[in-house]
Amino acid sequence: MKLYNHALAPNPRRVRIFAAEKGIELTLQDVDILAGQSRTPEFLAKNPSGGVPVLELDDGSCVAESVAICRYLEGLHPEPNLFGRDLREQAQIEMWNRRMELELFAAIGRTVQNTSSIFQGRYKQFPDYGETQRGVAHQRLERMDRELSGHQFVAGDRFTIADITALVAIDIGGRLADIKIAPELSNLTRWHKAVSSRPSAKA
Amino acid sequence: MKLYNHALAPNPRRVRIFAAEKGIELTLQDVDILAGQSRTPEFLAKNPSGGVPVLELDDGSCVAESVAICRYLEGLHPEPNLFGRDLREQAQIEMWNRRMELELFAAIGRTVQNTSSIFQGRYKQFPDYGETQRGVAHQRLERMDRELSGHQFVAGDRFTIADITALVAIDIGGRLADIKIAPELSNLTRWHKAVSSRPSAKA
Repeated sequence: MKLYNHALAPNPRRVRIFAAEKGIELTLQDVDILAGQSRTPEFLAKNPSGGVPVLELDDGSCVAESVAICRYLEGLHPEPNLFGRDLREQAQIEMWNRRMELELFAAIGRTVQNTSSIFQGRYKQFPDYGETQRGVAHQRLERMDRELSGHQFVAGDRFTIADITALVAIDIGGRLADIKIAPELSNLTRWHKAVSSRPSAKA
Repeated sequence: MKLYNHALAPNPRRVRIFAAEKGIELTLQDVDILAGQSRTPEFLAKNPSGGVPVLELDDGSCVAESVAICRYLEGLHPEPNLFGRDLREQAQIEMWNRRMELELFAAIGRTVQNTSSIFQGRYKQFPDYGETQRGVAHQRLERMDRELSGHQFVAGDRFTIADITALVAIDIGGRLADIKIAPELSNLTRWHKAVSSRPSAKA
């Protein structure tokens, strides 16, 4: 299986970390998004939404969207389990993954899009809006710190896809939007150190 | 099972339609979001994110996040299938559901939040940003019209959760942000008429 990839973009990193946790080796093919390589007719035939990651299966068919790709990989390689073992646990993990995606990752993404020089000229920016989104992201990090006082990982006492989503969100926010984990957020700091030190974090 | 609900909000409607397609009867308990009922300590104990829908199970535990709730209901009541029968189909349906959610529903949501009088005073609005998001939503509807020339429903030739997500997004956009389906978008018009005429659409 081939993964259309970008080394610095957060969504391909989600899939790379997920695959590394499972010991799945994916052939990576880098797509230079900033140079428009994800908007060529050839690439749009693989993913009409024009983004990465895209997983190309051995028969040439493609799956886009990071969480859809991860769930497909979970089906092929069930262990270690990252989406939940039974219906109840699956629901809890999906709930937490969506919270990390919709409440944290999305706010960080809107901050980056509206304030980072990377998007200047590519996207009409609304810096004031971006600043309020930076505040939303910081508030969510403070809440995450409180949540992590009750459990070791985002969705409970073991590492799941929800940790991967949170990690890539926080790291891209730190790199492109100066959204850092304040030192007094000790639970979040402990969690970030733990998930960052897993070998998969380098994938 | 009890569903904490709001009659006009789009996310509870996703779950109501999903349950109706499966013939699942949920006890509905309305939560007056606009009056702050989703922010009381009692409600935050059910869903710390402070929103609806929330599914309360018979043992008192809760699942929040519409798609997590729907997938849980799919596990309890597998037929009719709305998430896919095998890994490949599940991946395709999740991909399309996420496209409808992240590319369409999110753009419509940002338009509503930043332009609708419902959010005035509750949320710092950025009307110019909202207008660009209205344009993003309209572009996505035009693309959807082209996609629906190739298949009857959003994810292929049968009704799935991706149709539910698209329907609630379009209907809330029409009601609160004047985002209407242009009459020349004939495939989208045909699809919208078909999914709106299903009995579940009234749930």
